[in-house]
Parts: sequence; C-alpha cells; structure tokens
Amino acid sequence: MSARFATRSLGERSIRSPLSFVAPFVHGLPDGAPGFTHDDAGVLYDIELPRHASHVVPRAFERAGPREMIFFDPKKVTAGVVTAGGVCPGINNVLRSIAVELRHRYGVERILGFRYGFAGLDVRSSEIPFELTTDVVRDIHSRGGTFLGTSRGICDVEFLTAGLAKWGVDVLFTIGGDGTMRAAHMIDAEARKRGMRVAVVGVPKTIDNDIPFVDKTFGFDTAIATARMAIDAAHAEARSVDRGVGLVKLMGRHAGFIATHATLASHDVNACLIPEVPFELGGPGGFLAWLDERLARRRHALVVVAEGCSKGFEGLPVELDASGNVRFNTEAGDVGHLLRHAIEQHFEGSGRKATLKYIDPSYMVRALRATAEDAIFCDALARHAVHAAMAGKTDILVGRWHRRFTHVGLDDVLAHVKRVDPTSDLWCQVLESTGQPPFRNSTSERSERAVVK
Amino acid sequence: MSARFATRSLGERSIRSPLSFVAPFVHGLPDGAPGFTHDDAGVLYDIELPRHASHVVPRAFERAGPREMIFFDPKKVTAGVVTAGGVCPGINNVLRSIAVELRHRYGVERILGFRYGFAGLDVRSSEIPFELTTDVVRDIHSRGGTFLGTSRGICDVEFLTAGLAKWGVDVLFTIGGDGTMRAAHMIDAEARKRGMRVAVVGVPKTIDNDIPFVDKTFGFDTAIATARMAIDAAHAEARSVDRGVGLVKLMGRHAGFIATHATLASHDVNACLIPEVPFELGGPGGFLAWLDERLARRRHALVVVAEGCSKGFEGLPVELDASGNVRFNTEAGDVGHLLRHAIEQHFEGSGRKATLKYIDPSYMVRALRATAEDAIFCDALARHAVHAAMAGKTDILVGRWHRRFTHVGLDDVLAHVKRVDPTSDLWCQVLESTGQPPFRNSTSERSERAVVK
Amino acid sequence: MSARFATRSLGERSIRSPLSFVAPFVHGLPDGAPGFTHDDAGVLYDIELPRHASHVVPRAFERAGPREMIFFDPKKVTAGVVTAGGVCPGINNVLRSIAVELRHRYGVERILGFRYGFAGLDVRSSEIPFELTTDVVRDIHSRGGTFLGTSRGICDVEFLTAGLAKWGVDVLFTIGGDGTMRAAHMIDAEARKRGMRVAVVGVPKTIDNDIPFVDKTFGFDTAIATARMAIDAAHAEARSVDRGVGLVKLMGRHAGFIATHATLASHDVNACLIPEVPFELGGPGGFLAWLDERLARRRHALVVVAEGCSKGFEGLPVELDASGNVRFNTEAGDVGHLLRHAIEQHFEGSGRKATLKYIDPSYMVRALRATAEDAIFCDALARHAVHAAMAGKTDILVGRWHRRFTHVGLDDVLAHVKRVDPTSDLWCQVLESTGQPPFRNSTSERSERAVVK
Amino acid sequence: MSARFATRSLGERSIRSPLSFVAPFVHGLPDGAPGFTHDDAGVLYDIELPRHASHVVPRAFERAGPREMIFFDPKKVTAGVVTAGGVCPGINNVLRSIAVELRHRYGVERILGFRYGFAGLDVRSSEIPFELTTDVVRDIHSRGGTFLGTSRGICDVEFLTAGLAKWGVDVLFTIGGDGTMRAAHMIDAEARKRGMRVAVVGVPKTIDNDIPFVDKTFGFDTAIATARMAIDAAHAEARSVDRGVGLVKLMGRHAGFIATHATLASHDVNACLIPEVPFELGGPGGFLAWLDERLARRRHALVVVAEGCSKGFEGLPVELDASGNVRFNTEAGDVGHLLRHAIEQHFEGSGRKATLKYIDPSYMVRALRATAEDAIFCDALARHAVHAAMAGKTDILVGRWHRRFTHVGLDDVLAHVKRVDPTSDLWCQVLESTGQPPFRNSTSERSERAVVK
Repeated sequence: MSARFATRSLGERSIRSPLSFVAPFVHGLPDGAPGFTHDDAGVLYDIELPRHASHVVPRAFERAGPREMIFFDPKKVTAGVVTAGGVCPGINNVLRSIAVELRHRYGVERILGFRYGFAGLDVRSSEIPFELTTDVVRDIHSRGGTFLGTSRGICDVEFLTAGLAKWGVDVLFTIGGDGTMRAAHMIDAEARKRGMRVAVVGVPKTIDNDIPFVDKTFGFDTAIATARMAIDAAHAEARSVDRGVGLVKLMGRHAGFIATHATLASHDVNACLIPEVPFELGGPGGFLAWLDERLARRRHALVVVAEGCSKGFEGLPVELDASGNVRFNTEAGDVGHLLRHAIEQHFEGSGRKATLKYIDPSYMVRALRATAEDAIFCDALARHAVHAAMAGKTDILVGRWHRRFTHVGLDDVLAHVKRVDPTSDLWCQVLESTGQPPFRNSTSERSERAVVK
Repeated sequence: MSARFATRSLGERSIRSPLSFVAPFVHGLPDGAPGFTHDDAGVLYDIELPRHASHVVPRAFERAGPREMIFFDPKKVTAGVVTAGGVCPGINNVLRSIAVELRHRYGVERILGFRYGFAGLDVRSSEIPFELTTDVVRDIHSRGGTFLGTSRGICDVEFLTAGLAKWGVDVLFTIGGDGTMRAAHMIDAEARKRGMRVAVVGVPKTIDNDIPFVDKTFGFDTAIATARMAIDAAHAEARSVDRGVGLVKLMGRHAGFIATHATLASHDVNACLIPEVPFELGGPGGFLAWLDERLARRRHALVVVAEGCSKGFEGLPVELDASGNVRFNTEAGDVGHLLRHAIEQHFEGSGRKATLKYIDPSYMVRALRATAEDAIFCDALARHAVHAAMAGKTDILVGRWHRRFTHVGLDDVLAHVKRVDPTSDLWCQVLESTGQPPFRNSTSERSERAVVK
Repeated sequence: MSARFATRSLGERSIRSPLSFVAPFVHGLPDGAPGFTHDDAGVLYDIELPRHASHVVPRAFERAGPREMIFFDPKKVTAGVVTAGGVCPGINNVLRSIAVELRHRYGVERILGFRYGFAGLDVRSSEIPFELTTDVVRDIHSRGGTFLGTSRGICDVEFLTAGLAKWGVDVLFTIGGDGTMRAAHMIDAEARKRGMRVAVVGVPKTIDNDIPFVDKTFGFDTAIATARMAIDAAHAEARSVDRGVGLVKLMGRHAGFIATHATLASHDVNACLIPEVPFELGGPGGFLAWLDERLARRRHALVVVAEGCSKGFEGLPVELDASGNVRFNTEAGDVGHLLRHAIEQHFEGSGRKATLKYIDPSYMVRALRATAEDAIFCDALARHAVHAAMAGKTDILVGRWHRRFTHVGLDDVLAHVKRVDPTSDLWCQVLESTGQPPFRNSTSERSERAVVK
Repeated sequence: MSARFATRSLGERSIRSPLSFVAPFVHGLPDGAPGFTHDDAGVLYDIELPRHASHVVPRAFERAGPREMIFFDPKKVTAGVVTAGGVCPGINNVLRSIAVELRHRYGVERILGFRYGFAGLDVRSSEIPFELTTDVVRDIHSRGGTFLGTSRGICDVEFLTAGLAKWGVDVLFTIGGDGTMRAAHMIDAEARKRGMRVAVVGVPKTIDNDIPFVDKTFGFDTAIATARMAIDAAHAEARSVDRGVGLVKLMGRHAGFIATHATLASHDVNACLIPEVPFELGGPGGFLAWLDERLARRRHALVVVAEGCSKGFEGLPVELDASGNVRFNTEAGDVGHLLRHAIEQHFEGSGRKATLKYIDPSYMVRALRATAEDAIFCDALARHAVHAAMAGKTDILVGRWHRRFTHVGLDDVLAHVKRVDPTSDLWCQVLESTGQPPFRNSTSERSERAVVK
C-alpha cells in the first residue's frame, strides 16, 4: 500500500497466532477476508467528502454546522422543544444549550418547552408550555432527568400538528429515541401536507445507544460510569466470599452496548452476556458448565448480563408498555432474576454451593447528572440541532459519525437498527478482556443486523 | 450531491445568519471556503480504505488489530514495559491490559516492568524490574499514578539498548509523550544498528492531548472530569459574592485542549483563554475591558486559563526541567498568578472592586483513577499495542483515528505537533458556549500549527 | 437552671406551636414529659466520668485508649483477624489499621488473617491464613469488600477455639455483626474453659447500624452516600413524568436507620417507611390514600421504604439464611416489589394512572470504598481495638458513645437491640423533612425496643 | 468502678507499652494523670441533664428542639436570613431547610433572603431581598456556594438594625463564622437598646471547624472528602517517581482540623503539619532531616501542611482582608510555597535530588455540594434554628454537643477559641497513622488554647 503513513515491520511473520477466539470473526476489512486484520487494511486520514467529487461519489452524510444563509428570521421564529421516552443523562444539558444557542446566538425570543412529552403538544392538552428563558434554564444542567417532563406513547399525529399550529411553532426539536423519531417523521409529513413550514429536527436519545448512524448517543458515557460502580460493588461482593458470584444486570433490551462497554470499563468481568450473542445455559459448553469450572479454579466469578438476554429462558411472559416496547422489567420475566435462579439451582443441586449477589442498578444508570464527556457532547448536539433548524433543515436528526456532526434523514434512521456486531472489534475486545469462551448455542444464526459498530 | 444519505430542507435560505463570531473562521470544508458550513460538505460513511484501491490512494493509516501470522514465538519472547514522563489517569490500566493480553491471550511468560522510566532500563542501573505476573497487576487499575514508576529525561540511548540486551527484551512497550516517543524512535534505530530484532511499540500518553494523529489520548476524559469539578467550585465561589470572579488555571503548556473541553463540559464558563488564541489584557477590546463590562452587567464572571497563555505577560522568567520542557509552574511566572494579579490590580485601581477566587487543581487532574470511558480506551490501546508488537511491528505508536485503532510511524508523529485550531468546530463551540468576544490581539499570526482537531 | 451556659429569651411564650406532628412523641427529656423540648432540658458539657466519683456512680462505659501497662509481650504475641457476615464499606480500612498499629506501633510480628470468616479459623479447615505484612495491606483500603473473605454461619465453637490453639493465636479480632459478636463471646468462654489466655476483641460491623451502645457503625456514612445517589435518580425519574412515583428500597431488615438517614440526606423524599413505624396501605389515612392526594396536588412523589417493612403485607413467605437471619430478598416476598405492585394496582384500578420507577441499589450501598468520614472512623476503631487487646481486654467490643471510644462487654451488647425510636429527634426530623402524615395503623404497639438513638 | 457496663481483662498487666509517642500527652482523664488511658476512665451513658437536679449542677447547654409554647405568631412574623463570610458546603441546604421549616411546618409566609451578606441588610443598600418561596429554594441544595450571596466585613451595626426595622424583620438567622457571630451579638444588643423584639439566631459556619462548643461545623465532612481526593492524587504522584514527595496544602489559618482529619481519612500520609504543633524545618530532629531519612528508606513521602503553619518561616509578610483576618494566601507568604521551596532547596543543595509535586486544592474543598452526612447535619441545624427563633430565643447559636443539638449563648462562643489539642485522642491518632516523630521545636509553649476536641 502506498498510503502516506508507512510503518515498519521486523521481518517475515511465520508463526501462527494463538488467538483462537478471533477465528470465528469476520472483520470484513478489507474484502471480507475471514478473521484477523490484514496489513493492507487502512483507515482514511481525511473523512470529509471532497467538495467537487468528480465521478464516483461514496456514501456520505451531510455535514452539520452553522450555515451562512438561514431560512428563518430569528426575530419572528417560535421554537418548540419536546422530550419523549425514558430519561437519559444529559437531557437537561441539551435543553439548556438549545435555549442558549437560540436566544443568545441567534436572537430567537420565543422558545416553548412542552410539558410531559408529546402529550403536552397535543392540541387538546391543557398544559401550558414553559418559556425557556435564561433564568429558567440556567442551572438545569446540574440535575438528572428531564426538566420538561416526558411521557411514552404518542397520540394521533394530527393533534400534535394542530398543537404546533396552535402555538405557532416554526421549529420543533424532538429529543427522544426510536418512537420519538418516528413521531417526528410523521409530524413533518403531516405539516407538509397542511402546507405548514415547520422544521422538525431530532436529537437522538437512547440510553441503550442503539440508534443507527450515530457513533454514540448522549448519556451513554454516564450510564457506563454508573454501571461500572455497580460492577465494582459486585466484584467486591464476589471476591469477599468463597465461591462468590457477582451478577449484574444492565439495561439493553435489544442491544448489548451498555453491558459490553461496562464490562470493558471494569476490566474485572469474567463473562458478559448480550442479546446479540446467543448462549445456552445448560449442557457441555454452556454457561453453567463454564461457571462451574471457573469457581473451581478461581473461587469467584463476575458476570454481566444485558436485560434482553432472554434466549434460553423459554416461556418468558411478555408484556408491552404504552409505546409498544417489550417490558422486560417485571420480576417474573426479568432476565437477571431468571439467571440468578438458574445459577442458584444449578449449584444447589450439585452440592457445590455458590454464594450469589445480584445487583440491578436499573434506573440509576439513566437518571444521574451527565459526566463531563457527555456534557460536552450534549452541548455540541444541541447547538448543531439549532444550526440545522434555523437553516430550514427538516425531517432529520443530528448525528455524529466518526466524531463529526452530521445530518441524517429520519427515513434512513427508521429503516435500520443498530446492534453489537459479534464480529466487531468491540466484541473481540470483550472476549480478550473477559477470557470467556464461546458458549454453546443451538441457534447461531443472527438476524436483523444492519448497522454495526 | 448524490451521496446516499439525503436530507431535506424547507426551501430557499435568504436570511443572513447573525452568528458573527463564525466569520473569522475557515472551516476548510470543502475547498477552504471561508466561514460556515456548506450544504455539500459531507462526512464519509465508510472510512476503511478499500483493499485493492486501484489508482489514486488517499492518505491512510495502517489498521491496528490482531494479525493471523505473528513474528515472535510467545513461548520464547521476553517483553518489557517502560512508563516515562508525567503521570496520567489510566497508565495502570494500560500496564494491566498489556500484561493480561501478553500472558493470557498470547501465552507470553516473561514480562518485565522497568522501574522509574528509562532510568530503570539503563544498563548501569541497579534497579531490578518487576515481573508483571497476574497477582502483581490484578488490582492496579483501581489506582492513579504509575505502578512502575516514571522519570523525566533520558540518558544515552546506547545504555538503554544495552539494557534491552542485558535483560533479553524482544518487545518493548514505551508509554509516554513526545520525549518518550523520541527515545523509542532512537532505541529502535540503535537496536537495528546492532542487529537486534526488537519491536518497539509506543503507547501515546499526554495529559495535554497534544500528540498528533491521535483522536484523543488516554486520561484526557478523566482530566476533564476533575477540571470540571474545579470549575464548578469556582463558579459557586464567583456567584456567591457581588462582583465575584472565579479563575481556574488548567494544564496545557502549548495546547489548550484541557481548557477548551473543560469549558464545554461546564457550560458555565464566560471566557476561556488558550495559548493558540492570543489576546491582550489591557486596552479597548482587551480581556480586562470585557471583564469590566461583564461584571457590571452580570455581577460575576467565570474564567478558565490554560497554563501556556504567557503572551501578554512580558518578562516571564523561563526555566527548563530535566526533559528540556519549559517549566511554567514556578509561582513567579505562573500564568494563573500573573492573570490574577493583573485582574486584581485592574479593579483595585478602578475603584470598582472585584472579589477573585483562584483555583489551580494542578496535579489533581492527572493523578486520579481513570474514568470508565478512559478505562475502556486504555484497555483497547494496550491490547492493540500487544497485537502490533507480537506481529513484529516496530518504530510505531498505537493511535486512534476517527475511532479506529491504527499504527502510526514514529517519524510521522515526531515531525508534527497538535494544537487547538482556532478555525475548528471545537473553538467555535467554545465561543458559542461562553459568548466571549474575540479579544484584541496585536500578534494574530499563528505558527507551527500542523495537525488540527 | 443554673447551668453554666445561659441563654436568653425575648419574653413570655404565649402562643401554642403549630407543630402538630410532634404531639404524639415523648422526648423523655427531662422526666418523660410528653412532647416538645423543655427549656430546662440540658446537655452535659463534660461526659467523662469523674475519676473518684464519690457516692452515686452513674452508668458509664469504660474508656478506650492506649494503656500504659499492657498484658501481652509484643515480640511474642500472635494476632489473628476474622471478618464475618456481610460486607460493609471500610472493612479493609479496619484490617489495614489493625495490621499497621500492631506491627509498626507495638512491634507485633505475626499477624494472621483467616480466610472466609470463621470457616477459615476452623481447626479442620485446609485454608492457610494470610500473613498481614505491610506489603499485603498497603493498598487494600482503596477497595470495597473484605480482603480476607467472609462467610455466614459458624460451626461448632470448639473447632474454632481449637483453631486458635493450632495457630497459636493470643489475640483475636472479630469484625462482624450480631452473629459474629455472639461467636466471639462463645469463643472467649470456651478459651477460658480451656485455660487459654486469649483476648477476644470485637469490631462492630453492620450496614444497618443496629448494634446497641454504638453511636454509628462504620460503613454507614458510605451506605447513605450511595443510597442518596439512588434517591436522586428516583427523584429525577419521578419529576420527569406526569404523576411519577419514584420508589427506592433500602437495606434494613429490622431497623430503618439507612432509610431515615438517606431520606434526610436527600431533602427531597416525601414519605419514608420503616419497620419501627407500622402503617396501613389501604383505607382512609393509609399510605395509598396519601399518595393519591399527593399526586393530585404535586404531580409526583418520592418514597423510600426499608427492606423490613413487611407489616401490612400478609402471607409474606419467610426464608432463613445460613446464619438464621430472615431472608427478605427473594422477589416473591421482597417488600419493594410488594409495595410497587400495591401502588400500581391501586392506581390501575382507580383510573388515575401513575408511572412508577423502582430502584433497589441493594448491594451497591455496602460494597463500595469507604467515604473519608468512614475511613477516619475505621482507622480509630481499629487502633482502639488493638490497644484493648494488647492490654488484655477480652469479651468486649470497641464502641463509640457520644463521640468517645469505649469498651462494651459483649453480654451487654447481646442482651439488647437498637432500633429507630419513633419518639426520637431522628424520626421527628424525618417528619419535618418529608411532611408525611402519621399513616393509620391498627397495630400501634411496638415491642423489643431497648436502646434508642 | 461500679459503673453498669463492666468489662473483663485477662489478668495482670506487667509489660510497659512500647507506644513512646503517647508519653508527652496528657489525656486529662481522669484527674489529669499524665499519658495513656486509665481503666477507671469512663464515658457517661446518659448525657442529658436530670431535670430537677438537686444540688450540684454540672455545666450543661440548653437543649435545642421544638417548644410547645412559642413567642412569635407564625402568621404575623417576618423572617430574614443572611449568609456572611466565606462559602462552605451545605449553606444552601441550611437555607432551604430554614425556609421549608418556617413555611411548611410553622406557617410563616414572609421569609426574606438578604443579598450578599450583611451588606444587603444595610438600611442604605439598594438590594432587594429574595422572597424564599418554595419554588425558589426547591433545588438549591444540589449546588455549592450560597444562593443568597455573601460578603466579608460588616458596616456599622446601627445601619443593620435599621435594616431590620425597614424590612420589618422579627426573626433573623445569621449563617457565618466568628465575625458573623460577633455581628449577630451586636445586632441583638442594638435591637434591644431600641426596644425592638427581634430574635437573632446564629447557625455556625466555618470550613475550618474552629467554632467553640460545636462538635463539628457543617461542610467539614465535604471538605475532608475533597481534601482526601487531593491527597490521593499527591500520593499517586509521589509513588510514581523515585524520591517523590507529594505535598498538599489544606485550609486552616489557626486550626489544623482539616489537615488532621484529611490525613486520617487518607491513611497514606507520612507527616501532617498543623499550627498547633510547632516544628522546626532544619537541624537535627527537624522536619527536613526526617524527610531525608524517609526518602532514603522508603523512596517517597506524602506530606500535608495546614495553611497557618507559619512558624519557622520568619519574615512572613502579613496582609489583612476586609474582615480583619490574616490573609495567608498570597504567594509570597503562602506556607505551601514556602515549604515547597525549603524542601527543594534542601535536596538541591544536598546532591540527593527529590521530585516534589505540590497540590493546593484551595477553594475546591469549600465550594462543592454537601456530602450526604453534611446534608443531614445542615437540615437538622436549620430546623433547630427555626425552633429556637420561633420560641423567642435570641443572642444564641445552634450548636451540637456530643451529638445533641444545643443552644449556646453568643458571648460564651465569642469568649473562646477552638484548636486541635496536641494532647488529644485526635492528634494521637494522627501520630499513630503517620508514624511521624515529634519534630524538634524551640518554642514548645502553646497559648490561647481554650476548648479542645
């Protein structure tokens, strides 16, 4: 490869690597060769698209940033903000920076914060929105939760669009996850149908970090910090008794990002279980057999399991919440409790007793103040959302890709999902860190993977 | 632009943006058009270099990762580790993960940790290196500092290379900053001259985040978290009195990365001063005139200054430390103290007294335990360093570029510097966050900028 | 009153206080007058017992501290340490300070740390105790859990005493709760029976703070700090939705100390439920009626419940653990889950839906590193335990009373229990802070209260 | 001793204790016997004064708490609050709880928060006080500093008393230190002279913990937690280099409480220097000789010095601040800098170089959010202050003595000082923890000690 940044090697490589756990993985780089990294794999120095790219145009995102010419007259515009879905560290940072950027940088004077999610925007609602003045938002970034209030589920889009008209909103910021982005997309369509000129800009929020085309969602760093604290505690418990097992359940209904990152942050975890990598509990090669061996050899074990690891637990009762999401949190079907019981029963029966401590930090990981890293990220997201909206961009969310801020069309977002890719560097690092073997699983085929990380 | 991820806009943009502070900036994207972002600016979706890139090969880094065929036989190899320069959060995480990856994943049995930097590697030293066994490294990641010890300055490279021979080291990991990378580069050359087959792999460490071709150095996230705490305290002090000024000095001899990021993390800072953006203290348009106006209008002010902001303070006495770096920390020439006195004198003289509280968290920002985010990063850096070394790569450091791990040749690294680019998104975000004006400066020309972020 | 420190009042008090919630309380000071504090109630300036107290000797504890003449010859003594029962923040601080005081201050050279609780002391055990050298204990105070390991339940006292003889232990430190103190008491008796001269000194440890004659047990401050974090999260969740209920379950099987103190530390809790103050869920004046009213009026509520609040939940299945303690943690009988279901059912049925978020920090409150305050306390407890043991004191624990360190005979300790006194200042402060009403309860009589705080 | 709680000893004590460092101390208990603790020293079980104490009345404080009959009619009363002097963790907790107790428990409707200390109460001031409504105080406890603002120095008491009359204040809460209590005392006298019926109640606030007749002032626990963080960082720095010295300067102009407690919380400090225990730097038996020996033996050292340790540094320039307090913080006379230079010069000259890292957390220790422990304490202090004021108590502060809340007359408070007693358990524990020798000092006599702890 004639690329600019050459590196040097000592000589011929003639020894086969002992890293057996890499074998099943396909890095896909380059050309999908199976396993391991090739020397001619490269990372582009410059990831900005050349302006007048001649013929072949690679896939790219529109760059976010302040536009020289804008669509809305700041003096006449009314902005609205909605936070929907679950809470997440940093929402208040986003709210504050949206308000500050609009008011102090652009000169927008009317900024309405609708209460309790889309319910407060509904034309039939009796809630009066907050005016997001400087005094109102000054200190909200020191607190968790959402200052505006949130709710799950959305009512008829017509009522929401009528709400926009009622309050004269020209620019709407929707801070939320999948469901919120779907609502934003529909509101945009409805507004267009009605001939309303409303810019609808999404700020992606999900504690699970599972929004496609976004490097990392805000609040994630904070969630990992709190999750590490829970893992530290479980580690202390596990090491403090003979044959101690520390079990920590972390959020992640469909994606194991919190579980994998918290595992890596800890360094001490011995097994990490996520929905994307199925495993069997019993039998040879199963999780319990490994745990048995680990306890015999090392006298304690530390296990992290993601909320959505329901494979292998048949007959799991399923409930839906108001947004139509699966509710995993009821005790009966809670994976943490199921796994805990499975482990306890296994050792109880075997005569080799283990002492298990179970920690479920649950909402603690999502309701605390944003870490410094997250605070910076929230601020940048908010300001880029304002730049986009003032320029008249609509039906988009503000994303981050390879550490650059971008605009991503909502239909692209809604057509994909993001999961932990079991062939990625991320999962490879988890295996290196934990030393866990590939657990046996009868259903190795994976589906619905689209965007990997 | 025909790129894949299209976005939609409401219509023609005909209003000129009021964001005056963007004007002087050149985003350089695309085609170096002055100021603001263009709609046809894009961010590439895929940043991996195509394998058989036909004709035009863009600049790229070699991809880090485990190689299928390796150079060293794990059973016969002796590894050595050195930590040099100042401490940084996460060094112990790196040490632990290097040891774990070498021993448990590759099967390397002899891992030597040299004491107190290169001094311990010197063939004339009487220090016995630590054997980095599992028991020795198990819990070191819960502490700050460097478990091995460090020192500044390096002796003659010949003595160090002789030290490698004395201890039979085949693979050397050097964890450090500029000076350390220079030493690694020289050791590699000397070893080659002697016909020794030694792989020398650097892990970049600098609290200031100023190593080129690396997204972010480890420990930086932790430093920002601690710096934010200091800023929070200064903010509380400033708001608690009439005409209160909170002044926080942060590390950064040549680069203002800590100051800028901590400013953004806080949201509350009113002015951020960094070496890359010169400013004058006195006179109209100077910093003190702004501060005067701010106190009159808002009754308190919060200011962050980077260590290296010595412009404008003439007659600054200069000392050098053992590594030949400028020592800024002596009180006489300390920028924090100089600025504090300048402010106090200004208001004392004017009859409009201000109450200033000065906080210098100094070494606190670099000696604490790594945050979760940093811990993950340290672990990945360490493992990639091991993969590189076992594959026989030498004279490189393990970098991260656009969130991918890379190999970067040390001569490339040593030939560049990394600074805050005053035309970058980063500095633009600082201006948006603080609302600070461009302070007058007589010497606007900038030099030695090479790699921007 | 002619006491030394006089205070002044403005004049006659003729208005009846509106503090109705004080009415049912009996402060007992002085002379058991019902309710409120009298002006002639006083707090003694000096609480040290006069040395040659002539005739009437008030109840007092023996003062802890270094004795001039000691019983054991430091050069010949063998010390042993056991940690038993659940973990608690600060155990490692205690272990470290015991070892440092023994070795560096007294010159004791042989200090054995028995593994995994009393099981490791059992003469039949194959576990080899740790030698607690300076190197071994140097950094253990930076971690949670117990470095030695612990276990629940004790085997036959004869085997333990035989274990003391086997290892030649002259001085035994037992760090633990109720069960551990009972074991220590029995070991002391057995050793005396055998004519062994062994000093058995207890260091009281219980996360629940329910050991009598001890102001506050170590680790409690840390537990409260973590519990406050959980409450902060629940508060953010509750405020972030319309009709949000944050419910936090905290440890405390029999005593509500963690729940009350965490409630006070938060300032934001609206109701605190503890085992010592029975309440009814349903009916007028019950908890649910109050919650209904609170949500209608304020749109959110924050509730803390102690683990042991099982009254009102009939048919609660009871299990015992290895130490014979009631296990409340199984989901079926878990008070947090029971209360959560009761609340959800209540509002589900009523048509006035509430959104409840449940947080159970469980083991997180007891497995983290000790706070600064706790670390100081642990250090002092440990050193006083060493002073006592070296002086030949036995069958005692080291306590703290009115901020003085004391010796308390184990039979006194074992004959009493410590609970939150519903007539105390502590509970009064909880009522002032939460504003909660006295909930109706049919069984107001309380039993087994002995020592109040 | 026939006291109730008997303890048992193994037998005759015939060995002299090796604890030589106890020798110079006088525990004073009982009967002033020199050194060590006697077996017949006791701690009273009950510290409440018997109500109808017959003849001999021991010294005692009046008990704080809600009175049944009160002086002011809540519906007609106007309350005022002033915060003065430096900030301290927990001030906002105190403000919030005063407001909540007054409004929600007593029904007081008019609560005025004067801005920026006594300056805002001055009848000539143009500042409008805040109305402390529920909305205003709701979230202030999550922040450091003082929500009301503060200032140093007080103007003529007549103007302040006239301010009380101007705003119709019946009840004044003054939150502050020495100077504030003196002002409160004078305001009370002036108001009495004018025939005004105003209750003036102080809440003692000082980060240095040096207010007499108060166990511990609020914010102290938080200060220690932050100080420990600084010490942890200095420890990591010191251990990370050969012959590393970590030096931490902590607040404490006259009293070494922060330095001693932070030393104990860390466990890692090797020498703690406080104003109450003079020491010489040079010469045999001096501090530098000890440091030399320590570095030779252990290769690193960790030293804590209190701000007020100016003895031994002759020619220290002295400045006074607006309250007439000595300003130690200017660099020239800063003890931390002086000590640092002394150490560096000593080793520079000797040819045995040491690497010193100096950390001065300064205002960080006093401007952060209150810890859980402090938050509880602040809440209780505030509520007791309200009880006292509503009952018409005046010219007092609310104190805590042996963990009971008390009323202390301000003239008693102003007539005494509180210092670390070098013969106390506290200092003894410091010596046990650090292992530091008694440094030589030529001026061993101490003065102005009155109240010890």
